[in-house]
Amino acid sequence: MVREHHSILDCTIRDGGLVNNWDFSVQFVKDMYDGLSGAGVEYMEIGYKNSAKLLKGAEAGPWRFLNEDFLKEVIPKKTDTKLSALVDIGRVDENDILPRENSLLDLIRVACYIKDVDKALELVQKFHGYGYETSINIMALSHVMENELSEALEEINKSPVDVVYIVDSYGSMDYRDIDYLVSKFQRLVPDKQLGLHMHNNMQQAFSNTLIGAHKGVKFLDSSVYGMGRAAGNCPTELLVSNLKNPRYDIRPVLGIIENHMIAMREKWEWGYIIPYMIAGALNEHPRAAMALRSGADKDKFVEFYDKLTSPEAMPTNHHSD
Amino acid sequence: MVREHHSILDCTIRDGGLVNNWDFSVQFVKDMYDGLSGAGVEYMEIGYKNSAKLLKGAEAGPWRFLNEDFLKEVIPKKTDTKLSALVDIGRVDENDILPRENSLLDLIRVACYIKDVDKALELVQKFHGYGYETSINIMALSHVMENELSEALEEINKSPVDVVYIVDSYGSMDYRDIDYLVSKFQRLVPDKQLGLHMHNNMQQAFSNTLIGAHKGVKFLDSSVYGMGRAAGNCPTELLVSNLKNPRYDIRPVLGIIENHMIAMREKWEWGYIIPYMIAGALNEHPRAAMALRSGADKDKFVEFYDKLTSPEAMPTNHHSD
Repeated sequence: MVREHHSILDCTIRDGGLVNNWDFSVQFVKDMYDGLSGAGVEYMEIGYKNSAKLLKGAEAGPWRFLNEDFLKEVIPKKTDTKLSALVDIGRVDENDILPRENSLLDLIRVACYIKDVDKALELVQKFHGYGYETSINIMALSHVMENELSEALEEINKSPVDVVYIVDSYGSMDYRDIDYLVSKFQRLVPDKQLGLHMHNNMQQAFSNTLIGAHKGVKFLDSSVYGMGRAAGNCPTELLVSNLKNPRYDIRPVLGIIENHMIAMREKWEWGYIIPYMIAGALNEHPRAAMALRSGADKDKFVEFYDKLTSPEAMPTNHHSD
Repeated sequence: MVREHHSILDCTIRDGGLVNNWDFSVQFVKDMYDGLSGAGVEYMEIGYKNSAKLLKGAEAGPWRFLNEDFLKEVIPKKTDTKLSALVDIGRVDENDILPRENSLLDLIRVACYIKDVDKALELVQKFHGYGYETSINIMALSHVMENELSEALEEINKSPVDVVYIVDSYGSMDYRDIDYLVSKFQRLVPDKQLGLHMHNNMQQAFSNTLIGAHKGVKFLDSSVYGMGRAAGNCPTELLVSNLKNPRYDIRPVLGIIENHMIAMREKWEWGYIIPYMIAGALNEHPRAAMALRSGADKDKFVEFYDKLTSPEAMPTNHHSD
């Protein structure tokens, strides 16, 4: 039995916040950190480090606009589990970022679309200079042309970034896509660690993550009970129970699910839900499906499918969040 | 693009009946047959062909004890979609089976544990003599010793059976297990078609089925919205939307889900539910998890996990259904 060395990065608070508009109590986030620490999870993403000033009309709590003083109240004593935050291009105020020695954060991840890779690398350069571990997460890879991706990866390999993520924003990828992309990234960014962030529209987030892990991807994103926007993510409980590493223990994750996630899932919706499945099968942003699920026609699947596949269907626009 | 030739076998009525004690209306079964026909699904398993006489205390409706006269009322006009039924060793009265020319059924599948393969092959021989297509479905493969399996497969390859199924009864297999078993079966029963029947305890039923299909497995079991015992099966809607064959159309399957399955799922429970996940991760029969889910402690996941993993935990007994 070969022991596998991976870093699970649980993003329940960050990606799950897209489900409930970051309506998480401090106690929940504390319990999450304790549980993930007990489970041996290497990283917990505790929110976005975007700036409220740059997001008009945004009022969604502390997990969207992380503040170091507040963080110290939430996590008075750090464990082996490191903390990360995500930033979006154009939404982060660099003056908000402290040098790492004054911060609870260890890793700053920069999410971007392919057209903004240059801007992302500028941010990476700065955060790297502040002493943080860094990643670049290129979203919507299933809509990116091969030549554009190859050029971007060439630039990325020359940058100081530590981790390069393959992001299946639309939950449209299967194991062959993962096999292909991981091989490609391994060839084109040989000096970087790789990461995977999968969505579960077609019930493949876990299997895709497992296949990537066995191919040598180091960073594996997940969330407890799969909580994340729309169809959600690879469930943390499946990773810790299937990866061969004695450091992982599913028991504390089961405690989080029992104490918090079952009630949350009754209040808020995520997971394998037919309109998200349809969007995934069509390789589309879940935006239209999310709009459908918030209205009275939420279970009119055939009508929704016809709308998305009609010749007049509007092409999807790309925005983050 | 290579067109793939598979046979999807939808077993919603049969395996889903294990969820709701076969409480399906005739109209629902008619709608299912029409929908699957419209979707291009090759086979619909319309129930068990067991004998009520041999199942003490059993009272569960017509889909558990299929009767040809009743079947003709339900399906007055057959389409391209063939009909199958499952029988269990020791529960089928061979005198109930008509010659195929007098039956609406096309395929009879025999489910058995490894120790009963000889008995299963006797039944296969008879059904084959009556003119039916036949399959043998060896259950609980994850608990079978390699040497015993090899011996059984040698016998099976000499029999007249058409299809040999790989059954992941406990939902414990991942893509490496499927890769290994499909290669093994291809080597040891080279004269037979292969089939896959997966359970979804760890959200791998679809991905495992897809991987098997691409390796050359012909028969792919599924159920609409994944309805089946405990964690359920590979969802039919995911197969028809992902297999590359223009004969498949997801639209009629969406209609079945919209018109029936959402309401059914509110009434009855199946799918990715934590105690079933735990049973799958531990490679155990879902029996204990099903008992838990029917009681007041249904969400006490940590206690359940501790019970199943304590040194005093009873080994699982094997019974069908």
